[in-house]
Amino acid sequence: MNHDAQPRAAATPAAGGGAGMLQRLFEPRAIAVIGASPDASKLPGRPLAYLRRFGFAGPVYAVNPKHQRIGDSPCYPSIEALPDGVDLALIMLPAAAVGDALAACAARGIGFAIAVAGGFAEAGAREAQLALTQICVRTGTRLLGPNCVGLIRPANGVTATFSTELRRRMPRPGRVALVTQSGALGNSLLQSFNDLDIGLAAWVSTGNEADLGLLDFVEHFVGDESVRLIGLFVEGLKEGERLLPLARRARANGQAIAVLRAGRSQLGRAASVSHTGKLAGAWQVWRGAAAQAGLIELACLDDLVDLALAYETFGEPRADRAAGLGVLTISGGLGVLISDACAEHGLALPEFSATTQAALRAILPSQMAVSNPVDTALFTDEQGYATCADAVLADDGIGTLLLVLTSLAHDYEALAPWLEALGRSACARGKHVALTFLSSADQLRPETRARLLAAGVLVLPTAERVVAALGRRRATLKGGPSAREEGGRRVPDAEGRDAPVARTPAQFIAAAGLPLVPQSVCSDARAAVAFAAEVGYPVVLKVVSPDIAHKTEVGGVALDLGDRGELLAAWRQMHATLAERAPQARIEGLSVQPQVRDGVELIVGGAIDPELGRTLMIGAGGTWAEVLEDLRFLALPASRAEIGAALGQLRIAPLLDGARGRARMDVEAAIGVIERLGACFAATEWVTEVDVNPLIVRPAPGG
Amino acid sequence: MNHDAQPRAAATPAAGGGAGMLQRLFEPRAIAVIGASPDASKLPGRPLAYLRRFGFAGPVYAVNPKHQRIGDSPCYPSIEALPDGVDLALIMLPAAAVGDALAACAARGIGFAIAVAGGFAEAGAREAQLALTQICVRTGTRLLGPNCVGLIRPANGVTATFSTELRRRMPRPGRVALVTQSGALGNSLLQSFNDLDIGLAAWVSTGNEADLGLLDFVEHFVGDESVRLIGLFVEGLKEGERLLPLARRARANGQAIAVLRAGRSQLGRAASVSHTGKLAGAWQVWRGAAAQAGLIELACLDDLVDLALAYETFGEPRADRAAGLGVLTISGGLGVLISDACAEHGLALPEFSATTQAALRAILPSQMAVSNPVDTALFTDEQGYATCADAVLADDGIGTLLLVLTSLAHDYEALAPWLEALGRSACARGKHVALTFLSSADQLRPETRARLLAAGVLVLPTAERVVAALGRRRATLKGGPSAREEGGRRVPDAEGRDAPVARTPAQFIAAAGLPLVPQSVCSDARAAVAFAAEVGYPVVLKVVSPDIAHKTEVGGVALDLGDRGELLAAWRQMHATLAERAPQARIEGLSVQPQVRDGVELIVGGAIDPELGRTLMIGAGGTWAEVLEDLRFLALPASRAEIGAALGQLRIAPLLDGARGRARMDVEAAIGVIERLGACFAATEWVTEVDVNPLIVRPAPGG
Repeated sequence: MNHDAQPRAAATPAAGGGAGMLQRLFEPRAIAVIGASPDASKLPGRPLAYLRRFGFAGPVYAVNPKHQRIGDSPCYPSIEALPDGVDLALIMLPAAAVGDALAACAARGIGFAIAVAGGFAEAGAREAQLALTQICVRTGTRLLGPNCVGLIRPANGVTATFSTELRRRMPRPGRVALVTQSGALGNSLLQSFNDLDIGLAAWVSTGNEADLGLLDFVEHFVGDESVRLIGLFVEGLKEGERLLPLARRARANGQAIAVLRAGRSQLGRAASVSHTGKLAGAWQVWRGAAAQAGLIELACLDDLVDLALAYETFGEPRADRAAGLGVLTISGGLGVLISDACAEHGLALPEFSATTQAALRAILPSQMAVSNPVDTALFTDEQGYATCADAVLADDGIGTLLLVLTSLAHDYEALAPWLEALGRSACARGKHVALTFLSSADQLRPETRARLLAAGVLVLPTAERVVAALGRRRATLKGGPSAREEGGRRVPDAEGRDAPVARTPAQFIAAAGLPLVPQSVCSDARAAVAFAAEVGYPVVLKVVSPDIAHKTEVGGVALDLGDRGELLAAWRQMHATLAERAPQARIEGLSVQPQVRDGVELIVGGAIDPELGRTLMIGAGGTWAEVLEDLRFLALPASRAEIGAALGQLRIAPLLDGARGRARMDVEAAIGVIERLGACFAATEWVTEVDVNPLIVRPAPGG
Repeated sequence: MNHDAQPRAAATPAAGGGAGMLQRLFEPRAIAVIGASPDASKLPGRPLAYLRRFGFAGPVYAVNPKHQRIGDSPCYPSIEALPDGVDLALIMLPAAAVGDALAACAARGIGFAIAVAGGFAEAGAREAQLALTQICVRTGTRLLGPNCVGLIRPANGVTATFSTELRRRMPRPGRVALVTQSGALGNSLLQSFNDLDIGLAAWVSTGNEADLGLLDFVEHFVGDESVRLIGLFVEGLKEGERLLPLARRARANGQAIAVLRAGRSQLGRAASVSHTGKLAGAWQVWRGAAAQAGLIELACLDDLVDLALAYETFGEPRADRAAGLGVLTISGGLGVLISDACAEHGLALPEFSATTQAALRAILPSQMAVSNPVDTALFTDEQGYATCADAVLADDGIGTLLLVLTSLAHDYEALAPWLEALGRSACARGKHVALTFLSSADQLRPETRARLLAAGVLVLPTAERVVAALGRRRATLKGGPSAREEGGRRVPDAEGRDAPVARTPAQFIAAAGLPLVPQSVCSDARAAVAFAAEVGYPVVLKVVSPDIAHKTEVGGVALDLGDRGELLAAWRQMHATLAERAPQARIEGLSVQPQVRDGVELIVGGAIDPELGRTLMIGAGGTWAEVLEDLRFLALPASRAEIGAALGQLRIAPLLDGARGRARMDVEAAIGVIERLGACFAATEWVTEVDVNPLIVRPAPGG
């Protein structure tokens, strides 16, 4: 992706609005291919051939002055000459011709265009790309690309792409939508979807994002509840502050968003301009926001394919179904590795019920344990193995039965009919069967795998991949009803409704409701005693002088003064010591503050992330903040629950909960302060950075 | 693995000693198969058939009273009747008969036996297993198993196993040795080795380890310098304290040890009995010791196969060869993912030289960047692509060229001859070629892959797997010459030569040389002032009373007393305040200590890990130790370099280096104290646990 760094103007009214804004891009009445070629073996010839082959029902027009017809399609000499009703123009021309073609499409009233040519921002030609953006802003025609592979929508045969994989076949229509900033990686995903026969709602390659960006498509698919899983390959976001509200809406719809984010090493190094950035790379900010948004994070392309296959084969996870995995393995060692993977991916591996254990006990030799995972295969015949499988599937705590086979002991072709029947009977009971192998070198024949997938049996090369895919699938449920409620009911807008607008720093502090420790600079002991009585003992006495940098070293700090007597003694002694050690210093007075004891110091910062916009940093504060790097990041606006979750994930969280026999801190009060600070920071445009350190959380109540 | 928890006695003299202790197990003069069957399709019939088929040159005898010959092998009615010269007996009998057979083998003077039967400790029959251990200890005959699959050594056709995979083929002789506690997983590794034609030095399945354990075999292979990579699957170690010295010897030999450790979730939960264990699960102790030992940690079985394939294809890494990876990709997005993977696995991805850039520039369209990874394939013909590949391979900074292909754009069969030639010419220059695909679904035909592997081209399904395998291969070099030196020259023994033996706690503290902060409990101000003058100001004054739990709350602590006057004032005031606030308390005196400022608090602990023996914990100390969990673990004895590395990995390391404008701490002094404490703890058997908190490190020098 090589979009321009500067934000583009908001969509013009002409482009429409709301969830259906991109409807005609995915459901065009007619499509024109600008620069179409009659040679289907060449890149500009492919889209027409695909549209014909995969059954797009509307008219398809070619534009090419050299031809009058291309195949079945009428061919026009110019864009101006096109008939009415064209909603989508696929511009197959080289970079130099794209701008004029786009302008001509807009003039002809065509709402959407796709430009595939490279040679724009990715090649340093930012001006040329900006010109495309400006045409879009001026005319309201929306552009996908340039430097993209286009889009496909299998349900209606829209193949506005030159994707090489479509020479082989088109994926089946399905419930998984893919948005990839890289065309080549998207194409490789298509290949995997075809290999595994995973259904596809749509694939969009967004390229340079001169106009439409990845989040525009996320918004579109969030508005289409038939899409259940949205898979993203992200190199960089523009208008990233839209991510959080979109993710909340997706959760409210029960839709899952899975993200493979590239650039960890680059983002990890990138320090943003703010203090926040000095404490942590932009990668950590991204991770925090992704977790807050409930995105499913992926580590590689295979993770995305595996998760899509799990969705395809098992459907969406349901909160009312048993989540536990029951495993029949043929290796105790692999059983331990599977336990490790389950722990890592948060997948339950429950102990079997007494009934299940008894059923297994009846089959297995007495020396074998009947715990989960259970080692069976080499100790029983096929009938006994089937009985074990049935027993585990019948267990109330088990939602999915995982079978581990090896070609060294099993004849897959002979077992296939039984596995198919088992998959079907599991589905009928609202349960699932997954199949994997002891060795990833050990695979089914493609036809056998296809039959099993069709019977609802999830087949992946290794047990770890099964566990990861099922764990991620289950994670789309996380937060459950409350997350949905939050997503549905309160989507706080970026204006920060409740936050008053501050015009000066003092107003900002007041508006944010930051509880400052009261302080009085006193020039005589009487005033000091009066103030101390007002704020309560114990108090701290400190010298205030422009000439003293290190107060402690000249005896200018007295802590923990418990009463009037101690305060007065300290007052006298401090003046005496100062007179001796810092005779030249101008003393403005001695400040009196209540001593804050038993508190936990936090750091709270607001900063503007180049991608995600206004973000909040929460972490361990005090002088150690930079060393501990115990930080969490949230995109703004952040809810109380999100702030509480971030606090709970800090390593110092036990201190807040009252570790080491200390009192529990008033976390609720801290959340309140942080929430107000975040809302004010989000609402106050002229404040670009806030740092509060330390924010002292005191024991509950009243902390 | 189900070995008994109790440590077994050391090897008896009869079993021999030194590196060649197991030589006759791997190079037996004659082999007897006890309970052999003439039916090669049944499990007890396989070993004879394998020994015949794979060309073991020595005599092979069967023992079975029912037969007089089995195939070509003479068959004897009993073990007693066997001829002389048998070094290895493979006991194929059921559990109940194993003990007698083992005793008979020992009586017949057979040095090694393998018992495959299950039904011992893994099934709860600990007594039966202990009986086997006792026979070994008494007679000196060494046992592999029970409950194991046996061993193979391709170089001399020793196939003392019923491994199912040998029905297919035997791996080629090679330089990779595998030791797996799980037989089934080991068998699946054999399958992968055969699929990929990776050479194998030996495979041992250790099963229940009644006698010989995994580390005995590690010791054997460390003694055999023709073995270059030792791959381990570990579920649990006995005599784990042998791991570190063995790993040091392996590093000194330039051998690599790679470990897939199962049981993370279980070890993570397991709290050992000591304080150390309360702060961190045993998993962290394992991780620390593994890092200290320089083991290559693996996350799954495929990691082990990939690393073995990289060793097989590229040979050992060499410090005098360029390490950098140069990538030709066909997707900018994948290029970013590859950069991320390189950063994660510590593999260099250097910028190309000016010459290389110019060569690429001449081929690629002007809008394409010529940085590494470079996006080429779709922008040039095959000749141009070959020129790009040659240019990158010729770059002085590049040791390995990684090509990413896709069947959507490339005809692999047509490219194969060129790829073979490229691989060969790279090898001739001391460089390497690796090949992978945009999508893991996209694979070569097995024969094509075999041809490329034979030509020295490493082929793996995804770029991430190539980077991980190459990063791990390169990591076997880490530490380089110094690690070798350390391994070769100073292998400190567990007796702790330099550590004096302590018989009382006071002696222990003295022997460990722990620098205690001096302290004097004074009953009059004169003594306090005298002591303060001796240790130097500033000092701390604290009440000493058995009746006062919270000194601060009754005014019983005065910090930062800078001179005689402040000390005397505080002395008077403290007595006055105490008289008022704690009139009943028995005051034993007031203690005077020098105030330690500007120090960094560490925690250092010694504990006995159930597996690894005496271990050292080093971490952030003070009252926050348990919250921060900023800890590293080392097996003892630990060198100064290892202690220094552990300190450097702490999150608080910047504090030691003088973060926030503070002085640099005397880390050398801290290392010295920690080293002495570790050596004393290792040497003092009656001390089972040590905790020092805080160990205050002060600014250098003299910290």
